Amino acid sequence: MRMYDIIKKKRDGGALTSAEIDFFIRGYVNGDIPDYQAAALCMAIWFRGMNAEETANITLAIRDSGEILHLSGVDGLRVDKHSTGGVGDKTSLVIAPVVAALGVKVAKMSGRGLGHTGGTVDKLESFAGFRTDLSVAEFERTVNETGIAIVGQSSDLAPADKLLYALRDVTATVDSIPLIASSIMGKKLAADDDCIVLDVKTGSGAFMKSVDESRKLAEAMVDIGKRAGKKMCALITDMDRPLGNTIGNSLEVIEAIETLKGNGPEDLRELCVALASHMLCLAEKGDLAACETDVRRVLASGEALQKLADMVEAQGGDRRWVYEPERFPKAAYSREVCAARSGYLTHTDAEEYGRAALLLGAGRSKKEDVIDQSAGIRLLAKTGDRVEKGMPIAILYTSKEALLDAAEEALDAATRIEDTQPTPVPLIFDTIL
Amino acid sequence: MRMYDIIKKKRDGGALTSAEIDFFIRGYVNGDIPDYQAAALCMAIWFRGMNAEETANITLAIRDSGEILHLSGVDGLRVDKHSTGGVGDKTSLVIAPVVAALGVKVAKMSGRGLGHTGGTVDKLESFAGFRTDLSVAEFERTVNETGIAIVGQSSDLAPADKLLYALRDVTATVDSIPLIASSIMGKKLAADDDCIVLDVKTGSGAFMKSVDESRKLAEAMVDIGKRAGKKMCALITDMDRPLGNTIGNSLEVIEAIETLKGNGPEDLRELCVALASHMLCLAEKGDLAACETDVRRVLASGEALQKLADMVEAQGGDRRWVYEPERFPKAAYSREVCAARSGYLTHTDAEEYGRAALLLGAGRSKKEDVIDQSAGIRLLAKTGDRVEKGMPIAILYTSKEALLDAAEEALDAATRIEDTQPTPVPLIFDTIL
Repeated sequence: MRMYDIIKKKRDGGALTSAEIDFFIRGYVNGDIPDYQAAALCMAIWFRGMNAEETANITLAIRDSGEILHLSGVDGLRVDKHSTGGVGDKTSLVIAPVVAALGVKVAKMSGRGLGHTGGTVDKLESFAGFRTDLSVAEFERTVNETGIAIVGQSSDLAPADKLLYALRDVTATVDSIPLIASSIMGKKLAADDDCIVLDVKTGSGAFMKSVDESRKLAEAMVDIGKRAGKKMCALITDMDRPLGNTIGNSLEVIEAIETLKGNGPEDLRELCVALASHMLCLAEKGDLAACETDVRRVLASGEALQKLADMVEAQGGDRRWVYEPERFPKAAYSREVCAARSGYLTHTDAEEYGRAALLLGAGRSKKEDVIDQSAGIRLLAKTGDRVEKGMPIAILYTSKEALLDAAEEALDAATRIEDTQPTPVPLIFDTIL
Repeated sequence: MRMYDIIKKKRDGGALTSAEIDFFIRGYVNGDIPDYQAAALCMAIWFRGMNAEETANITLAIRDSGEILHLSGVDGLRVDKHSTGGVGDKTSLVIAPVVAALGVKVAKMSGRGLGHTGGTVDKLESFAGFRTDLSVAEFERTVNETGIAIVGQSSDLAPADKLLYALRDVTATVDSIPLIASSIMGKKLAADDDCIVLDVKTGSGAFMKSVDESRKLAEAMVDIGKRAGKKMCALITDMDRPLGNTIGNSLEVIEAIETLKGNGPEDLRELCVALASHMLCLAEKGDLAACETDVRRVLASGEALQKLADMVEAQGGDRRWVYEPERFPKAAYSREVCAARSGYLTHTDAEEYGRAALLLGAGRSKKEDVIDQSAGIRLLAKTGDRVEKGMPIAILYTSKEALLDAAEEALDAATRIEDTQPTPVPLIFDTIL
């Protein structure tokens, strides 16, 4: 078998066999296949796509390129939720405790933020002392004892994905549905949960800017998971504006805590309820309506919040911070951003809001950057809201005063105020079962 | 300017500016742009193509990536012919002396053979002592004194082409008309002739298998040359069967000598007459009909043959070999290949015949291979001829007896004999002016 022939076959519109895909992934990971041939193949895939079988096969090859997390020491079904990445998306911090409070094990691996999107692992590290680098044995023990643990993604899982993603990132071949689907699902399948709910974001802050594209991606991922024997569903949800009212690590944790008390912004709360209900439903805890009732009950009762406190304590943090959020360090500097005119907020560009938070120190431009945990943005108004000239629409937070000007400018540029109230868009566009 | 944006622009169907193309070629040659980004761009070009302006611009960038051969010491117009590569194509050995005999300077750079196609430089080295590595000063002096010189291609010309071609060769991005056209013309323009006649081959032994594709390539190259201020034309000629009756270096030289005496196989002779006439016509030696009369005259008179002898002598060979071809060393082993049945030869696959010659030692699989000058094939029958079962249709020559079996098998597989005489195809399909 020759890589040249594999590239040519795909270039000419052929479907690659499972053996050809394995040859490529294995050869690329072990260094037999050079970057330039992999880049040519990725571009050919960008143009020609991959059918469902090819997409499933490349996902399995990516999964099998490294270790698979067999948490054999964990009893019962494990369930996970995966978001394609958004701005202000702190749903994992809410959902994982909710589901765990209802007796379904959550052994979650999460990523760090890069660019305009944040990462759950970074957010959790706002709790001083919180350890996201548990060993497998510690991870299993914590899950069995408290029903929940969230750790950073092991670098031993799906190494093919890291290599391929880094290559696609510099060769303009990222935005290919089979390549995105296999990248996400290759890692997810390596974590080996039994049930997976996907939150596929759509809109200005999402990878997929249109509902149609998001639906195609969701369908591809649900199909892959089912072929691999997993229970799957996906929600297509809005990411045209930021989710909730905060962007930035400790700001988001505090908002998640509010939501775990049954409060919090409506969009965040309702999305968490929907996602958690689907997770419980996949885990055979009843029909969707019954699961939703359960979710609202553990939010109202404080049981979910207690589960978060248990997890924080089990992973080295101080559980009191969950009940006394004023303990989180505050940013040294803040600035109100005010409406330039009166009217309706017709666009709060999620990606650009994410970039503004990045400019304040809340994120990373490069993997090596250090995050300012207290930096970020609090939104006082969102798309659809009426604002008056001079009224504050957001507050910027940072530890470095010099960063405020650029962030304010970015936020202004990403905000549109017009005379006519925009048509509301749904929070959840579709559900793929 | 970022290579990423250039790849993405082309991927999305945009036209690259001259500055973007220069950035790519310059950066690739000096090592700033890695192979994987160049490979991704080549694949995007394979899919999206390039318009005439982009194609001309990448050609100029390739030309300008190295030295340009300004033979300022050579008086008068210089004219060249370039073939896209075929099997049994020894036209340069005939045409260059013909044109030089008619007073037009030929300062030709030629390539070596690779794969199923041969190279003029290899063929000339069948003359013992023939030097193809003249310095620029020697090259100029020889052209001024004898009107003709043929040397190997300088490695300082168009280095971008070497790098790009090597990359395209392993990434399935060779067969893209703008990339082929710019590769050929980038080198040709670096040699800086005033007039260029292109012989674009079509058929089983050619890079372009259809007349339509060949015409597109010819038009692209003529357009590039004209934009660069050159006098251009192109002939689309048959390469579905080998040209002439011999394949292999000294065998081809001897056939060229026969043709320079006004004899030789009709297809070879007529193609040489057509190409030489167009070269003279571009060099303003009269209209096409007048030039053709001149060509036939110097073939009949022996003036063209004498010019070959002058060149051989000037470049270190023995001119007597031109008049006494029996001086060329002969292969130690030969074998007749006989018709398996009676009927008409309906296909003598040029590429596969070329490969059979390669198997006998007449060519190179890798650049480092050493050529057996006397190895090759003499065709006793060609497509369209009537053959009887058991009658010899070809003779194989080699210095290594062990190679005969595989070559005979390859030749057999590439030869089709059927009951019905095939429709004759023209030698010259079209002329692009």
